[in-house]
Amino acid sequence: MVMKFLSDNAARVHPKVWDAMKAADAPDSPYDGDALSRSLDDRFSAIFGRDCAALWVATGTAANCLALSAMVEPHGAVICHREAHIEMDEGGAPGFYLHGAKLLLANGEGAKITPEAVARVIDPIRDGVHQVQPHAISITQASEYGRVYRPEELAALARFAKEKRLGLHMDGARFANAAAFLGGNVAGGAAQAAGEVDALSFGMVKNGGMSAEAIVFFDPAMADKVRFRRKRAGHLQSKGRYLAAQILAMLEDDLWLDNARAANAAAGEIAAAAKGRLLHPVEANEIFLISTAVERLALREQGFEFYDWGDDAARLVTAWDSREDHVSALARAISGL
Amino acid sequence: MVMKFLSDNAARVHPKVWDAMKAADAPDSPYDGDALSRSLDDRFSAIFGRDCAALWVATGTAANCLALSAMVEPHGAVICHREAHIEMDEGGAPGFYLHGAKLLLANGEGAKITPEAVARVIDPIRDGVHQVQPHAISITQASEYGRVYRPEELAALARFAKEKRLGLHMDGARFANAAAFLGGNVAGGAAQAAGEVDALSFGMVKNGGMSAEAIVFFDPAMADKVRFRRKRAGHLQSKGRYLAAQILAMLEDDLWLDNARAANAAAGEIAAAAKGRLLHPVEANEIFLISTAVERLALREQGFEFYDWGDDAARLVTAWDSREDHVSALARAISGL
Amino acid sequence: MVMKFLSDNAARVHPKVWDAMKAADAPDSPYDGDALSRSLDDRFSAIFGRDCAALWVATGTAANCLALSAMVEPHGAVICHREAHIEMDEGGAPGFYLHGAKLLLANGEGAKITPEAVARVIDPIRDGVHQVQPHAISITQASEYGRVYRPEELAALARFAKEKRLGLHMDGARFANAAAFLGGNVAGGAAQAAGEVDALSFGMVKNGGMSAEAIVFFDPAMADKVRFRRKRAGHLQSKGRYLAAQILAMLEDDLWLDNARAANAAAGEIAAAAKGRLLHPVEANEIFLISTAVERLALREQGFEFYDWGDDAARLVTAWDSREDHVSALARAISGL
Amino acid sequence: MVMKFLSDNAARVHPKVWDAMKAADAPDSPYDGDALSRSLDDRFSAIFGRDCAALWVATGTAANCLALSAMVEPHGAVICHREAHIEMDEGGAPGFYLHGAKLLLANGEGAKITPEAVARVIDPIRDGVHQVQPHAISITQASEYGRVYRPEELAALARFAKEKRLGLHMDGARFANAAAFLGGNVAGGAAQAAGEVDALSFGMVKNGGMSAEAIVFFDPAMADKVRFRRKRAGHLQSKGRYLAAQILAMLEDDLWLDNARAANAAAGEIAAAAKGRLLHPVEANEIFLISTAVERLALREQGFEFYDWGDDAARLVTAWDSREDHVSALARAISGL
Repeated sequence: MVMKFLSDNAARVHPKVWDAMKAADAPDSPYDGDALSRSLDDRFSAIFGRDCAALWVATGTAANCLALSAMVEPHGAVICHREAHIEMDEGGAPGFYLHGAKLLLANGEGAKITPEAVARVIDPIRDGVHQVQPHAISITQASEYGRVYRPEELAALARFAKEKRLGLHMDGARFANAAAFLGGNVAGGAAQAAGEVDALSFGMVKNGGMSAEAIVFFDPAMADKVRFRRKRAGHLQSKGRYLAAQILAMLEDDLWLDNARAANAAAGEIAAAAKGRLLHPVEANEIFLISTAVERLALREQGFEFYDWGDDAARLVTAWDSREDHVSALARAISGL
Repeated sequence: MVMKFLSDNAARVHPKVWDAMKAADAPDSPYDGDALSRSLDDRFSAIFGRDCAALWVATGTAANCLALSAMVEPHGAVICHREAHIEMDEGGAPGFYLHGAKLLLANGEGAKITPEAVARVIDPIRDGVHQVQPHAISITQASEYGRVYRPEELAALARFAKEKRLGLHMDGARFANAAAFLGGNVAGGAAQAAGEVDALSFGMVKNGGMSAEAIVFFDPAMADKVRFRRKRAGHLQSKGRYLAAQILAMLEDDLWLDNARAANAAAGEIAAAAKGRLLHPVEANEIFLISTAVERLALREQGFEFYDWGDDAARLVTAWDSREDHVSALARAISGL
Repeated sequence: MVMKFLSDNAARVHPKVWDAMKAADAPDSPYDGDALSRSLDDRFSAIFGRDCAALWVATGTAANCLALSAMVEPHGAVICHREAHIEMDEGGAPGFYLHGAKLLLANGEGAKITPEAVARVIDPIRDGVHQVQPHAISITQASEYGRVYRPEELAALARFAKEKRLGLHMDGARFANAAAFLGGNVAGGAAQAAGEVDALSFGMVKNGGMSAEAIVFFDPAMADKVRFRRKRAGHLQSKGRYLAAQILAMLEDDLWLDNARAANAAAGEIAAAAKGRLLHPVEANEIFLISTAVERLALREQGFEFYDWGDDAARLVTAWDSREDHVSALARAISGL
Repeated sequence: MVMKFLSDNAARVHPKVWDAMKAADAPDSPYDGDALSRSLDDRFSAIFGRDCAALWVATGTAANCLALSAMVEPHGAVICHREAHIEMDEGGAPGFYLHGAKLLLANGEGAKITPEAVARVIDPIRDGVHQVQPHAISITQASEYGRVYRPEELAALARFAKEKRLGLHMDGARFANAAAFLGGNVAGGAAQAAGEVDALSFGMVKNGGMSAEAIVFFDPAMADKVRFRRKRAGHLQSKGRYLAAQILAMLEDDLWLDNARAANAAAGEIAAAAKGRLLHPVEANEIFLISTAVERLALREQGFEFYDWGDDAARLVTAWDSREDHVSALARAISGL
């Protein structure tokens, strides 16, 4: 039996998302002129408790780079973590979308950065035109190691960004998992998690969607600019209503949080079994399991699929639809190593 | 009653496309590593009777610009018709994807161009570095006025392009409608229509798809390059299998041709009623109806929706799902003007 | 004897410019930190009677494109005359410097444009993201046909640009010739000619300089941005003092105007002899001489060098150092045709 | 008395360079059509003993980036040392000229890199489109710390580059100093130093020139492409003959080597006095002097100007025209610390 823990990015599409897409299957205005697309701003404004403008795009890469294109000029730079997705896994898309602007790499535990880490990158930059000046910071929530920025950490970064006159972008490919982790008052939790940033790539695809991510702008002027950039990048789909439908379905009755909670819970069960073997605390839906090659082989022989993480660890990812029996089996298998 | 003839780009998704997408709803490899995506090359090679490499993308704009990016260097130019979609309706995407390369505009009846029309554009270009040199030609099949290049016209353009060492790209947003119009042996018709070009943007969305177009490369080296460019443009969706599924469904049992024939037939019925009022011969699924403002108002009052085309015409577009009763009603209404 | 009327762009360097360069031949701060470079803002502010910021660059192409880069975003467009240098002779540099922004081409007699001509280009642009929106206008003073915008024409364009929220750039490769033509109070003439625009490419190379043009910004914020863009384009020379020295020498005691008057006077003498044969009124230092191939051959056999201008005309250009005997000889030769 | 050891980039222009420029002060063909510019290919071919194509540009930044633009596609990357000039001091020019391609940073003693250092950067890059793939390597000769690649080191890098199908570019802002250091048979030494690379930015400005650097291509096809890119970047000066004249003067009778030898000798004298205080062996014309803030203050109080290099060192640079008395004084002052 194959039990997949490779990534959440290939999971199935949630039935409610399917239903919403089917419900959108009647002619409406093309592009983002349809009723569903036009309702996104209000929907996100309600969730975040402040004025938002939201645009759909097909991928997280496009979301991240379009969001940044509103904050960074071609001659500027973005500070991000050394292992940020925009640096490591987007095929140079930031260079393309930002017309050659630079990524400056900060260090930080758990792929998270702090004002101090950013300062260590930008303080040595000489003033003047010989060195590329920073224009924005990009952080990932939850981080590439499944770590979650706490509200006070975000607030500190936001203050720092303001002070340095830098834009602040959040790559929220797993924003839902982070919001679920932060828990408590749901809408409040979300607001805390995102209200400090200028733009958020609000991921849906890893969490039950098919092909729609939302870019949420807390500064509507940025959205006005990005509308042009989205079209120019070939990301303005003519049947945009099917993307808007996915997003609205995810937001309806907090499906996004329910799905994220399910993925997080699965990860938590596995993490509990992996005590003492965790490379990083498990706060979202990724488990980095310290393990030998022999141990990983043993897991694979039992049917578990996952990626190696260097020589001494495995990366295991749960998703909204991780099967309980698979998760329990994995937890047992890890306990038995 | 509202009867929409605004555009085919907002039509519904064909039931067989839905079925194929649902059938793809199990975890598989992400991006284009899934079985469906991996089958596209063979599928298109069979259709065109020669080795092809095919990539899915979400929009025609991305398809066109990515295809051209394999042929045109940043310091080069593309010759296209003055009213080509890449010039008129893509928000400057060619400038973005080609890193500032130029569009050079040719004239031609029915938004079609000929070797002579291209020559009139490029012959005056002085040799040397002061003027941008042409690197490729882009044509639209069917054209922006619903006109179809005949095989001999394509062959002449292909010969010309070879001779001038220019790439040749076909924007086939309505390639299916053109192929259907060219008729006869279906696969043969398609091959005739496209075999001469280096890359084809094979449109699916206007013809029953939801969010997948195919870029078909007749030179696989171009595809290898464009794979990088697609990722870099944020167009490599993680759940690519849903795009591949759409394309495969469209190709299965010639659904693409059936759908195009239906749209063309509907346009033909309307055109027959509009005799003497046609700005352009109707060869695909667009009708440019010479009409006064008063006449257009009369049509709109009967429930027909369409765009004005300048002051003296209307543009009416049929789709694979145009309702027969709407089409007949429109034909009658036009006859009665 | 060879008598060159090919172009002013290969003329000699004025002795006073040489002297100034030699005088700068001691170590000073590199880049634009030297005393000469730092004096440019004040010098131009005095000439134009308002706060200016001025940057040197090596070429008119760089000056034009850098100036425009402060006004035009990558997703925007510049309106210019169909025969503007930025469109016809800069090897696609605007596409490079503006990251793919578009040039929109206006018509107009004598390669000059009017608000009406610009309106004819931009009025049909549909609002929204599907078509590239205009961000700036670029005009050439004197125009590519040696025609000069009058103060009231500039004022009208400036009003129009403000109203449409467009930047206004002047390509002044032959700004000196235009200023000389406008005559009268020298400083006033210059101010009239340029005070309405946001940025001026103030040409020096055709007028006695060697390798320095000035970009004059009437909005200092633009200069601050362009300082970064200049470095990024590899145009911040380390021994910038030699460029600043050239510019200051040209400005000293109105050498720029003296040189331009000399070139204009030479052109005037030739024009007087060419009465009835002029394709364009001669307002600066270019003569477009209606002539047959036989006549042009006759001129060439007498030693005159110049370019054909299509089949029925010659382009003859005078420079600051055109020799009086050559000019008189040419005038006589034309009279004798 | 002020004694400047800040940088060689602000030194005077050599009298023979002035003479050559003056000798070019007659009208000739514009751009690079003049006799001097047309002689560059042959001149460099003779020096390097193989077919070369050479282009002038005004700055090292432009030379580096244009050279790389012939080897690196927008979706590719360049590997360079972490402290390479293209990474640290060119204001993001590589991002501009390479349309968003990436710089990948290697480590290495003395700002030099080895095949092993490059391998450590590129080996972890996953094959496929998610990570930017390397297209070229750029090295600096002499390095940013004044260190010189030996012929066998260059040969090893060249072999490695070929094997990995990477272009190889040499930033030779101080190539003359390196060639002088490598010594022996002069032309042979130069050939050894550069013959293995695809393109060389041959610096002249720091070594007695005013405003001309040469890009030497050992693959003429690259030059053909870069000619277009140079114009497109606004670097094709109309009075190019003055740049060609500078380069030819520098090459005449090995003036470039004489000048470099003078600068190196001056550095050597200072280095001898600084024994035990050198951060890097002195192989060219830069001295990195380990020193306390108090010591640096003492030197400055004696009239020496230089840059701090971090907290614990000073950077001192000699030039072709460093005065012997200044050099001796500095050596004495250092000895006396």
